[in-house]
Amino acid sequence: MDTVTVNLGQRSYPIHIGSGLLTGHALLKESTTAKQLLIVTNETVSPLYLRQVEQSFADRNPRSLILRDGEQYKNLEGFSSIIDELIEAEFHRDACILALGGGVVGDLTGFAAASYQRGIDFVQLPTTLLAQVDSSVGGKTAVNHPAAKNMIGAFHQPIAVLADTDTLSTLPARELSAGLAEVIKYGLIQDLDFLVWLEEHMSALKDLDAEAMRYAIRRCCEIKAEIVAQDEHERGRRALLNLGHTFGHAIEALGGYGKWLHGEAVAIGMQMAAETSVELGWIDSTDADRIAALLQQAGLPTRVTGLAANAILNRMQLDKKAGAHGLKVVLPKGLGHAVVAPAPDEKILKSAIQKRIANVQ
Amino acid sequence: MDTVTVNLGQRSYPIHIGSGLLTGHALLKESTTAKQLLIVTNETVSPLYLRQVEQSFADRNPRSLILRDGEQYKNLEGFSSIIDELIEAEFHRDACILALGGGVVGDLTGFAAASYQRGIDFVQLPTTLLAQVDSSVGGKTAVNHPAAKNMIGAFHQPIAVLADTDTLSTLPARELSAGLAEVIKYGLIQDLDFLVWLEEHMSALKDLDAEAMRYAIRRCCEIKAEIVAQDEHERGRRALLNLGHTFGHAIEALGGYGKWLHGEAVAIGMQMAAETSVELGWIDSTDADRIAALLQQAGLPTRVTGLAANAILNRMQLDKKAGAHGLKVVLPKGLGHAVVAPAPDEKILKSAIQKRIANVQ
Repeated sequence: MDTVTVNLGQRSYPIHIGSGLLTGHALLKESTTAKQLLIVTNETVSPLYLRQVEQSFADRNPRSLILRDGEQYKNLEGFSSIIDELIEAEFHRDACILALGGGVVGDLTGFAAASYQRGIDFVQLPTTLLAQVDSSVGGKTAVNHPAAKNMIGAFHQPIAVLADTDTLSTLPARELSAGLAEVIKYGLIQDLDFLVWLEEHMSALKDLDAEAMRYAIRRCCEIKAEIVAQDEHERGRRALLNLGHTFGHAIEALGGYGKWLHGEAVAIGMQMAAETSVELGWIDSTDADRIAALLQQAGLPTRVTGLAANAILNRMQLDKKAGAHGLKVVLPKGLGHAVVAPAPDEKILKSAIQKRIANVQ
Repeated sequence: MDTVTVNLGQRSYPIHIGSGLLTGHALLKESTTAKQLLIVTNETVSPLYLRQVEQSFADRNPRSLILRDGEQYKNLEGFSSIIDELIEAEFHRDACILALGGGVVGDLTGFAAASYQRGIDFVQLPTTLLAQVDSSVGGKTAVNHPAAKNMIGAFHQPIAVLADTDTLSTLPARELSAGLAEVIKYGLIQDLDFLVWLEEHMSALKDLDAEAMRYAIRRCCEIKAEIVAQDEHERGRRALLNLGHTFGHAIEALGGYGKWLHGEAVAIGMQMAAETSVELGWIDSTDADRIAALLQQAGLPTRVTGLAANAILNRMQLDKKAGAHGLKVVLPKGLGHAVVAPAPDEKILKSAIQKRIANVQ
């Protein structure tokens, strides 16, 4: 088992990565001392892992709440259902919520924990690769607005993250690939060595090789922990973690949440960002091809269908990264390096987006 | 004009108290440099002050949102209506919201500012005495749940507070009295001199004597700023500010939000707390009478009608101040001094509550 620490002073917390963490492991029981516990999960994850987690806390008689599964349920209604459960159970300020599931469960639960009585503890028990390497770490919590993703939320750090790599064996291939998009992101933004390692070990990761997977998750968490410790509230450098996300969020929203998995939209978005960098002369077209090849090897889409470049561009203007000084985008500048830059000329962006839109007959 | 600073490092902010702050004063224009501005107010306040505030920001073309007036609208629906407006206006992270109104407007607006894109700036422009001396300062934001007050919210500090004392002239007498309940609270928890000053100047305050009012507001803000700077997230001493609130919240909820003003419920709650302290021998019954007399002089109710002591007691158990170690209450221990204490025996509490329930024929 590996442990990575997110250093945030009094709010520091460990990320434990390894096998068997959800099946009676002492670390789970010890992750919170709260007496009032609510486990929030969804209808897909609950048959697989809920009973195990409940058993770890059997002496504290935990409650459980099973949400519907899907990004389309990550909204204020889902948030309210968690709050209602906490009220119904008469939970106090020193209660704790455990988020057992992927990014949707983690984001919803985290925002409920942030808001209930102005903030109670929560523990992340991520069961998808995407949640293990990205969304469960760093304290970003949110729900979607019908008009745009993650518009309503809070920065609220968990008190612990337990990433049980065994859960990846029950993950559908499409979800595994979606998680690999975020894994590749870390290599692209600041670690060329890791990017090269990924090129060499992608098939091992797709085969769920335990050693390779644990290393990949640890490396992602190390990079993310370091960035979050430096810039918790995303005033600067943390924005690098949004590589591909400005394009990706527009694709997700326009497709209607649920058509594209988040990681798939981010994968296409990262390629649109790469094409933008090619247009700007910041990377070579061979670099962009290399990025696309790695994403394809991970089982990810390389092009979007059914959307117009203009629609994507317009949608991007509403992105959270847009500010009074105009839209900003994260762009590769060399391989294994990225920068936050003012959005280039619309023509350049549109041309780059266009390259990643499939021509449908 | 007086200025009190809330010292919270990088998140420090000024509270300006004085006449004419909403009518073209430079401090209002300079309170935010944001280019995207939304003024949130309600149907009662908007005819009185909205145009003035809009004019101060005319060069930035501010938007306005007028909410319905009343504690019963301080809920997730009201919160959503502000978020919808921000989305509709395509507001970015560096936008700013101005809360023009009383505690309900401030709490709702503050929670929307805390949550929109995980946090944007907001300015408090309190127009009630209660908001000027208490709710606009300190960063507590929240909405009510049908089952209990302020259960959903965030700690999110404003970037400035401008308390224009001229607005008190349009305040209904009942609202003025409700604000005076919180003013008296500050004397009770830690400032005997101020309590004595209040006994001497209560009629001046009720007559809106400008000098007396400015001093009272400043003294309240000084005490609150000092406590908030020490204990922003209410891990300890800040709980003193809840004197009367555990009892009061139960009274408000049981009456149905809207029957009692918050300050009225707190006034009765402070008397129940005082009666509890009498039962415990922490203050004399003459002290409790003195507190009741001062509240009565301020135009506040001294007894609740139509509620049973048991119902109030049961409701108090859900209060946020209740924790794994049981309910805590703030109680006077000597005049001008209060402590956070574990709730005493139910018999004692019930007897104290009973003393402040009116016998209706």
